[in-house]
Amino acid sequence: MKVKNVSLVEKGTIVTPKGFQVAGLHSGVKRKRNDLGVLYCENPANAAAVYTLNKIQAAPIHVTKATIAKENKIQAVIINSGNANACTGKQGEIDAYTMQKVTAEKFGIKDHYVAVASTGIIGLEMPMDKIVPHIAQLSLGISDEHAKAFGESLLTTDTFQKSICFQTEIDGKTVTMAGAAKGSGMIEPNMGTMLSFITTDANIEPNMLDMALKEVVNQTFNCITVDGDTSTNDMVIVLASELAGNESLTPEHEEWSTFIKLLTNTCEELAKQIARDGEGATKLIEVEVNGAKTDEDAKKIAKSIVGSSLVKTAVFGTDANWGRIIAAVGYSEVEVNPETIDMAIGPIKLLEDSQPTGFSEEEATDYLENEHIHIYVDVKIGNGSGKAWGCDLTYDYVKINASYRT
Amino acid sequence: MKVKNVSLVEKGTIVTPKGFQVAGLHSGVKRKRNDLGVLYCENPANAAAVYTLNKIQAAPIHVTKATIAKENKIQAVIINSGNANACTGKQGEIDAYTMQKVTAEKFGIKDHYVAVASTGIIGLEMPMDKIVPHIAQLSLGISDEHAKAFGESLLTTDTFQKSICFQTEIDGKTVTMAGAAKGSGMIEPNMGTMLSFITTDANIEPNMLDMALKEVVNQTFNCITVDGDTSTNDMVIVLASELAGNESLTPEHEEWSTFIKLLTNTCEELAKQIARDGEGATKLIEVEVNGAKTDEDAKKIAKSIVGSSLVKTAVFGTDANWGRIIAAVGYSEVEVNPETIDMAIGPIKLLEDSQPTGFSEEEATDYLENEHIHIYVDVKIGNGSGKAWGCDLTYDYVKINASYRT
Repeated sequence: MKVKNVSLVEKGTIVTPKGFQVAGLHSGVKRKRNDLGVLYCENPANAAAVYTLNKIQAAPIHVTKATIAKENKIQAVIINSGNANACTGKQGEIDAYTMQKVTAEKFGIKDHYVAVASTGIIGLEMPMDKIVPHIAQLSLGISDEHAKAFGESLLTTDTFQKSICFQTEIDGKTVTMAGAAKGSGMIEPNMGTMLSFITTDANIEPNMLDMALKEVVNQTFNCITVDGDTSTNDMVIVLASELAGNESLTPEHEEWSTFIKLLTNTCEELAKQIARDGEGATKLIEVEVNGAKTDEDAKKIAKSIVGSSLVKTAVFGTDANWGRIIAAVGYSEVEVNPETIDMAIGPIKLLEDSQPTGFSEEEATDYLENEHIHIYVDVKIGNGSGKAWGCDLTYDYVKINASYRT
Repeated sequence: MKVKNVSLVEKGTIVTPKGFQVAGLHSGVKRKRNDLGVLYCENPANAAAVYTLNKIQAAPIHVTKATIAKENKIQAVIINSGNANACTGKQGEIDAYTMQKVTAEKFGIKDHYVAVASTGIIGLEMPMDKIVPHIAQLSLGISDEHAKAFGESLLTTDTFQKSICFQTEIDGKTVTMAGAAKGSGMIEPNMGTMLSFITTDANIEPNMLDMALKEVVNQTFNCITVDGDTSTNDMVIVLASELAGNESLTPEHEEWSTFIKLLTNTCEELAKQIARDGEGATKLIEVEVNGAKTDEDAKKIAKSIVGSSLVKTAVFGTDANWGRIIAAVGYSEVEVNPETIDMAIGPIKLLEDSQPTGFSEEEATDYLENEHIHIYVDVKIGNGSGKAWGCDLTYDYVKINASYRT
């Protein structure tokens, strides 16, 4: 099975894959920016989703889970930002179902073809008087303006829209996949206030899509962290419109790996954009660990490093404080040999066999001025490798979170 | 077994228990403040210690472990701040043993009666040219000035000295216990750049002392967190001079529980002082969880809350953002019922059965202006209870850690 090339579609948006349309508008839940959006497919799309592992799950998570379970098909996703509809009790469930019902009526589709997603403040009752009348006003389209209006409707403290589009060829047909996401705070392994909407025109059955998504999410979205907090509302949902015309994809299909690569590239790119836009962040930190006993171990070390507040502040302060990095290796609860650790940032070797190389602090500081920081660790006791992504910890993180509600 | 009263000794210091003396001075490892100290006992004291769980352990940890193992007696602890002697390879081990040897010579005692502790920057070779000649100049005493000079010699980014003294009566004899500690960054369950030195004149065998210490540390020092980072250098060491004249303490002694209470009060008070002085902190946060399935579960929830960057910034910003607290309950990986959670801050009830009580935001904000914030959570599914301590996350945390080395 040869893996085909997957290429970036430079001006692609969430509606570049065939069959999808979007809309977004300002309903008044947030003060200024768009806060209500819809993703629509011209036919009921095959759907798969993964959800937050937080034991306190918001009403829209309950509703979407139950909804997808019915037929594994989704034709519309209604999304609001500004209010998470979490910890809102029975009224929250009623409100999420009302959003579903009103959206279904608007598009003349079945209730259980409508998924619901919310993000924002926890514990406030949904302002349904603002949301409901505005659902009727959502005006679908496929223009860049429509994509932007939709992208904006997802955001909370995000400073930019996250979006990506890739293409490949399967069975001689062009297959396109695109995504739009929101991130910011509470971003942590196993997801955190993170919503990702992925569209593709690939032909693939829901159970296959579900299998592929779980595999890929574990290597991508579950490897990012902003602050270690996991939210009540996370969701990644993939809709497949089947309009590309390829043969139905299964692991037996000879281009299955190409499809997995398409999905991996899409999820990894969204994950990196989310990490880069962690609250107050100025830099994306990418940690690559090799030489661990297993891939799981390597990923655990990578996450431990990228999640360390001390490493994050050191990167912000352009301080090549490898002592904090090696301390994070040590407390990752993974087997390592304290004597055999190699470490580098970008092209600069910091440690060989756990000993400083006598690197130039000045060069290291220069490197840390970059916006995309690579940290490489080789623990040299096995063949396990893994990656994780995060961001620096800055004054603005504190500022944003000390005054989010007030 | 009646538990006797344990009372605070208001002006007590680390040398209030009988038999102990201290010294501290400036050797030049740090720029200004004292950076070299010694704790001395007139006889070889019975000793017990617990250490960091970080897999990368600093040289002084290795040396002290090996040293105590020989006879379980310690007569002097030599301590420096400014340099952690961690990740310093063979030379680091040699340097730690040299500190031990020079100290033993100075006081005319056996090498293996000297413990070594270091805290500060990781990965820099020890400036032995500064430390060695100054060990000879350490001048013991029991005055408040001596205690202060010693206390200062432990500190790194700490803003105040941590110290406490308690007394009780056992077998009709006054038994005193005191402690001095340093904390600040890298403070996390299972300890983090945290050194605590505890003295007592109680008569207790080393194996009993060890058992008591492990039990108490698990309920106190292991329940504080500043930033989730665990250091390479942590240590809590207890020295018992046996001069109080009580009968040797064992669990069969009818005042064993009184001794445990004495040790618990001492460790809890030091732990709280450390949490309160987390880097950049303005407030101590104390979380009490009840109604969990087990005590372990309750402690896990309490730690999850107090370790949440989002909760910490909300407390800093005097924002009664209970959504972040309940989210931290949810991701603590402990069994809870999402529908039955009660929550309060200080006297203000925020949630009953997971629903907002309609509390006054103004009152809540007023309460959060306090320097000591209590968060109470009752998950109401069992009888488990537990506590954890931490601090708020502020601009100054970022400032301190973005520029610690540079």
